[in-house]
Amino acid sequence: MDYPSAPPIRAAIQERLELGLGYPHWDDAPDLNPLREVFTERMRRQGVAFAPADVRVFTELIQALQVVLHLGTEPGDTVALHTPAYPPFLDTISAMGRRLRPIPMIDTPDGWTFDTERLAAAPPAALILVNPHNPTGRAFTRDELAGLAEIADRHGVLVISDEIHSDLAYEPHRHIPFATLHERTVTLTSASKAFNLAGLRCSVAHVGDARIREALAAMPPQFFGEVSSLSVVATVAAWKEGGAWLAEARETLARNRDLVKDSLPPGVRHHSPEATYLAWLDCRELGLGDDPAAHFLADGKIMLSNGPAFGPGGEGFARLNFATSGPILTDVLQRLNDSASRAT
Amino acid sequence: MDYPSAPPIRAAIQERLELGLGYPHWDDAPDLNPLREVFTERMRRQGVAFAPADVRVFTELIQALQVVLHLGTEPGDTVALHTPAYPPFLDTISAMGRRLRPIPMIDTPDGWTFDTERLAAAPPAALILVNPHNPTGRAFTRDELAGLAEIADRHGVLVISDEIHSDLAYEPHRHIPFATLHERTVTLTSASKAFNLAGLRCSVAHVGDARIREALAAMPPQFFGEVSSLSVVATVAAWKEGGAWLAEARETLARNRDLVKDSLPPGVRHHSPEATYLAWLDCRELGLGDDPAAHFLADGKIMLSNGPAFGPGGEGFARLNFATSGPILTDVLQRLNDSASRAT
Ligand SMILES: Cc1ncc(COP(=O)(O)O)c(C=O)c1O
Ligand SMILES: Cc1ncc(COP(=O)(O)O)c(C=O)c1O
Repeated sequence: MDYPSAPPIRAAIQERLELGLGYPHWDDAPDLNPLREVFTERMRRQGVAFAPADVRVFTELIQALQVVLHLGTEPGDTVALHTPAYPPFLDTISAMGRRLRPIPMIDTPDGWTFDTERLAAAPPAALILVNPHNPTGRAFTRDELAGLAEIADRHGVLVISDEIHSDLAYEPHRHIPFATLHERTVTLTSASKAFNLAGLRCSVAHVGDARIREALAAMPPQFFGEVSSLSVVATVAAWKEGGAWLAEARETLARNRDLVKDSLPPGVRHHSPEATYLAWLDCRELGLGDDPAAHFLADGKIMLSNGPAFGPGGEGFARLNFATSGPILTDVLQRLNDSASRAT
Repeated sequence: MDYPSAPPIRAAIQERLELGLGYPHWDDAPDLNPLREVFTERMRRQGVAFAPADVRVFTELIQALQVVLHLGTEPGDTVALHTPAYPPFLDTISAMGRRLRPIPMIDTPDGWTFDTERLAAAPPAALILVNPHNPTGRAFTRDELAGLAEIADRHGVLVISDEIHSDLAYEPHRHIPFATLHERTVTLTSASKAFNLAGLRCSVAHVGDARIREALAAMPPQFFGEVSSLSVVATVAAWKEGGAWLAEARETLARNRDLVKDSLPPGVRHHSPEATYLAWLDCRELGLGDDPAAHFLADGKIMLSNGPAFGPGGEGFARLNFATSGPILTDVLQRLNDSASRAT
């Protein structure tokens, strides 16, 4: 995101800076960490009752994912993931010696969908559910999620649900927490996407799986590190006082999303995202090979994300981040058009 | 510490706040993390040549310690530690199923010392060296350290050297990095003590042991978490621009140290610390039992640290933190005198 942080977040950091940067009052007493309550309250409003004691704080979301995979699966286990996928998920699965079971996203005239049946045929040890989905921008429907929950229930699949984009669903789409459908879910989230705080390294996990909760409790308490007090107060401020800023940011993003839809070059197709500030662009008709982003960078001096890095189904695609200002986005889209026209 | 953060630290945080809290430029490229260079430059001035590539960043120092013990020793292994010791070291050793081999600090008229020979008789798997030492405030001499290095060399003992108080040695005492004497050392430090930044959760490790370096490299890259960008810039500012502030803080602390020395109640003895802002008070003559701090809290409404929590040798002691202002320290010492006189 190209936006400065929300005023309540800046104020919270400022206030803590005045109070001092020594150990916070929740040091050595994780139940006093305000994130636990603030997160469970937030999830209560989304329809799930989480116990604060089952919440753990991690630095970034990908750390939480790696720790949960480490404790909940074995090397060689299969891990399902909708593909294309945000590259760090693919890197994590391979770095940890797990085997990727792709759930291919299917391109239909009505948008991206997927086939649950393939999963039921050979259930994986774990499913990393990324909802809303990066890069397609899908906010999965209750029916789609219920299909996954049913398989997870039936086959004891560990579901790790990344809900980092949940605050960025556009009307009439709604984010549905997977834990409303499947209790054993490990829910991961962070204020880092909606509030542009990724550098603060602060994420939270609700660990709905008792075995993983116990394995975590058996580790020495500081083993996975702790989050900066400034990051804790910033995340608390985002979730408790960031509503007005977020509503405005979401309006800007919705306008940008429409601008993208209305301004794509001929030969570039996409399904307008239901959530996230990401547009997953099918550039195959332009004939630019597997990695059209390389062409746009060299030719148009605009940086999109490399489609093939998103794994199976990424060839010929590029991902556009539209979380910027109107004028910059207009310029980007103009360059994309110019560069596409020079390709064909 | 009871002091507000140094102006260059506040300025660095402020500047980053303006720049934005998204991913920093060193994301996904740990060699670009400025801490590596700044730390190796700092150590170069202390007489050790570290390669930036062998530096790893952790959240807090105790995390780094736990990770290094995890990768470098096995459950059941013995871990030597000078005792009494800062309680999280004792907790770490027991939480990780390692066995404590105490190196008792010995009280002599000239100060605290220890006997290296006991260690050579049955070499441990690892030595956690805390230098300067918490709670006794010793800055170990080159001779003392050379004795330990010799045993470590001879018996292949993994030395983890916590040098978190190295900036807080008082003239004429000098901090000597253990790595100047023993190359395989894992050196751990942080700006958190000298600059009062413990809430920021940022520590660095130089991993002089190739086996541990390789074990770290084999883990998925985010497994141990990442440090907030605000904490990185704060630590960089402390180490690059905090010299003047630190010199002043050290003067205040030296005055406080002398105030403590001159104002202890009859029946309370101590060796004035060579480093740290901690005074380790022998209260045994007061006849207050194992935990004199409990008496001072209940009777004098001052909070010292509980001696027995520091393990073997802590009974009858209390630890006083004197990193506060002159007037507050004067009040604390008055209360300590009053409370001691009511004990005897
Ligand atoms: C779906 C998704 N999950 C996780 C992340 C990374 O989060 P973190 O930086 O907290 O690891 C991102 C970042 O873009 C993301 O899009
Ligand atoms: C000797 C020593 N090591 C480590 C620490 C803890 O450092 P951190 O908070 O970075 O884990 C302290 C804190 O007082 C300490 O005195």
